[in-house]
Amino acid sequence: MPVNYATPAPDQLFAVAGVRLGIAEAGIRKANRHDLLLVELCPGSRVAGVFTQNRFCAAPVQVCRDHLSRAEIRALVVNTGIANAGTGEPGMAAARETCAAVGRTLGLAPEQVLPFSTGVILEPLPVERLVAGLPATVSDLKADNWYGAAHAIMTTDTVAKAASRRIQLGGKTVTVTGISKGAGMIRPNMATMLGFVACDAALSPELTQKLVKAAADESFNCITVDGDTSTNDSFILIATGQAGNREIADAGGGDYALLAETVTAVARELAQAIVRDGEGATKYISIVVEGGRDVAECKAVGYAIGHSPLTKTAFFASDPNLGRILAAIGYAGIPDLDVSRVRLWLDDVLVSRDGGRNPEYREEDGARVMKQAEITVRVDLGRGTATGTVWTCDLSYEYVKINADYRS
Amino acid sequence: MPVNYATPAPDQLFAVAGVRLGIAEAGIRKANRHDLLLVELCPGSRVAGVFTQNRFCAAPVQVCRDHLSRAEIRALVVNTGIANAGTGEPGMAAARETCAAVGRTLGLAPEQVLPFSTGVILEPLPVERLVAGLPATVSDLKADNWYGAAHAIMTTDTVAKAASRRIQLGGKTVTVTGISKGAGMIRPNMATMLGFVACDAALSPELTQKLVKAAADESFNCITVDGDTSTNDSFILIATGQAGNREIADAGGGDYALLAETVTAVARELAQAIVRDGEGATKYISIVVEGGRDVAECKAVGYAIGHSPLTKTAFFASDPNLGRILAAIGYAGIPDLDVSRVRLWLDDVLVSRDGGRNPEYREEDGARVMKQAEITVRVDLGRGTATGTVWTCDLSYEYVKINADYRS
Repeated sequence: MPVNYATPAPDQLFAVAGVRLGIAEAGIRKANRHDLLLVELCPGSRVAGVFTQNRFCAAPVQVCRDHLSRAEIRALVVNTGIANAGTGEPGMAAARETCAAVGRTLGLAPEQVLPFSTGVILEPLPVERLVAGLPATVSDLKADNWYGAAHAIMTTDTVAKAASRRIQLGGKTVTVTGISKGAGMIRPNMATMLGFVACDAALSPELTQKLVKAAADESFNCITVDGDTSTNDSFILIATGQAGNREIADAGGGDYALLAETVTAVARELAQAIVRDGEGATKYISIVVEGGRDVAECKAVGYAIGHSPLTKTAFFASDPNLGRILAAIGYAGIPDLDVSRVRLWLDDVLVSRDGGRNPEYREEDGARVMKQAEITVRVDLGRGTATGTVWTCDLSYEYVKINADYRS
Repeated sequence: MPVNYATPAPDQLFAVAGVRLGIAEAGIRKANRHDLLLVELCPGSRVAGVFTQNRFCAAPVQVCRDHLSRAEIRALVVNTGIANAGTGEPGMAAARETCAAVGRTLGLAPEQVLPFSTGVILEPLPVERLVAGLPATVSDLKADNWYGAAHAIMTTDTVAKAASRRIQLGGKTVTVTGISKGAGMIRPNMATMLGFVACDAALSPELTQKLVKAAADESFNCITVDGDTSTNDSFILIATGQAGNREIADAGGGDYALLAETVTAVARELAQAIVRDGEGATKYISIVVEGGRDVAECKAVGYAIGHSPLTKTAFFASDPNLGRILAAIGYAGIPDLDVSRVRLWLDDVLVSRDGGRNPEYREEDGARVMKQAEITVRVDLGRGTATGTVWTCDLSYEYVKINADYRS
């Protein structure tokens, strides 16, 4: 059960002009489940992406990087069940064959197609089953299919993740809609396991690339479930240019700022939904680290707390065993950290200062906050003005159960 | 239940000439348990230590560093229950008062005493109860008390950890005996949560310092249970000089080599016992990373695998979901890793090569190894000659239970 998150209703997910989506049951790994998504984009769409830094990055990630660098992208194809990662040259061939098959179906060159896969690593992609499923996705192509698409890309997710907003831009209505998937193997480093956000704004290629990176940094690059950076993380931004606004090409202008804010908000909602649906999650934790010399050290402290199994099990138990958080701050890799200047809050409760427990701290105050489903851990490092945020969840029996059973 | 480890019998733990140990029930945090250990050393003993790199290092760690730098150490005092970490200036005062009380009892200066604490972080040390327990430890002082001492320093440990060896050195019998404790918050960075090794060899102060660091690097600095670096990690080497051998002062000589090998072997046994008794452990995993450019990158890969919750839960489930190991190798932080050169073995089974699954690999071979209680993961990075080893355990329901319940 996700922590305070429900999939928006189908009519809350606005269609994006220039984008059609189709889903199918291709039987990639299991029968009788939607496991294939085809996304068709209108001519002139701008597409940019950020991808995992994992060196064992999946074959589709490598193909995406290649195709994005040399073609106008007109289609995306996503399968679940098999990640097509750790599959060597045969995996590359399977990803390329997937793109060629989509190209034949839609009348596109293979390099105009971006492939995405999610599922088990180290197993071969049954490309013939995928290709056999394509006609059904084509028949299903329609603009108001985001709700179905969000469901078709789920693996261990317990809810589908989607978000949608509308803004006015130069007198035109612009729609931003996105979907994501992910619950485990979540510690994105550039982007996360499948996030797609599309808008119908006209946006220059340079700004599309700039915005996908900026939005990822403020959303998917702030979350962790288990610290495991996936082989397949991909976050894609699409701007179809169908809204009728004048193309935005100035990063300093108000239109870019408003669009960037909206795209980032949608991405953040999708990223946070992944944490709320984190494998076995019972609590949603925001870790806000302030007073650092730079953002990197703030994030390092945030991730140290967010990855600590001891901190995560204490959240699960609602146990204000808060020395575990101090220990994580201490080993986060800031060699000259002056711990006497560090302060730690749990929501509004000041837990620690002057290198020790706050004399006014009362255990019952900590216990009260720890019982909540949503908790903010705030750390002031007392050495600068930078800030960094990490969103995470607790570590429960259920996490172990899910990951000890996955595959079987 | 530890994985293939049992405490040696009392008569297998040889007394070390010049060392006497006494234990007591001081009621530091809970009643009716041995929670206080006093170790008395003969004059002329050489003592050296390595300590946690956690910036929130405990007060006793800070006092140890100070005392080691300026006095001849003659006593160690260890309490369980309260870690005296995250306790600010009052914690420093409590650690100093502990040393003063031991000094008064044994007729030593306070700085001749090293204090150690283990237990809950962020709570004050009840120094009056500790001091009240000291007379009982003094009455109990005896040379053949290593077995009791190993039990007196346990916290969430399910077994006491001790090791002992005898060697001949320059015609004299030298005894090396040690104890350790730890099961959770284990990812030592310099040393681990309380390891003590004593020998009666005569060893120069410089070589004592050199050996404690070298032994730690080959033992406690190779283990991880949960990736949480403790605030209190301390590893101490004592050389009492009572064996009658001529003082070893040449690091290039055969005597030093033999002693170093023996001390390291004892330290390794103690460190591995901590992993075998890792919280909730059902499997003991050795991760051997070869073919790296330097030891640091081999260890980084070893720890990435050893810390991955997905890998650890797969071991718990005996599930050869080995793509998770590839993913961990891929995100271990080697930006120019050529994955097509990486090879992965599970014991003798070659699982992956050429960036994908070994064509000869059969799932039943992986499944056979995964069922074992002891498993060696071997990775060849294919880019150099350096090697690094990490020992770890799996992640089970029991780990979550232990850490969700600890304190209550």
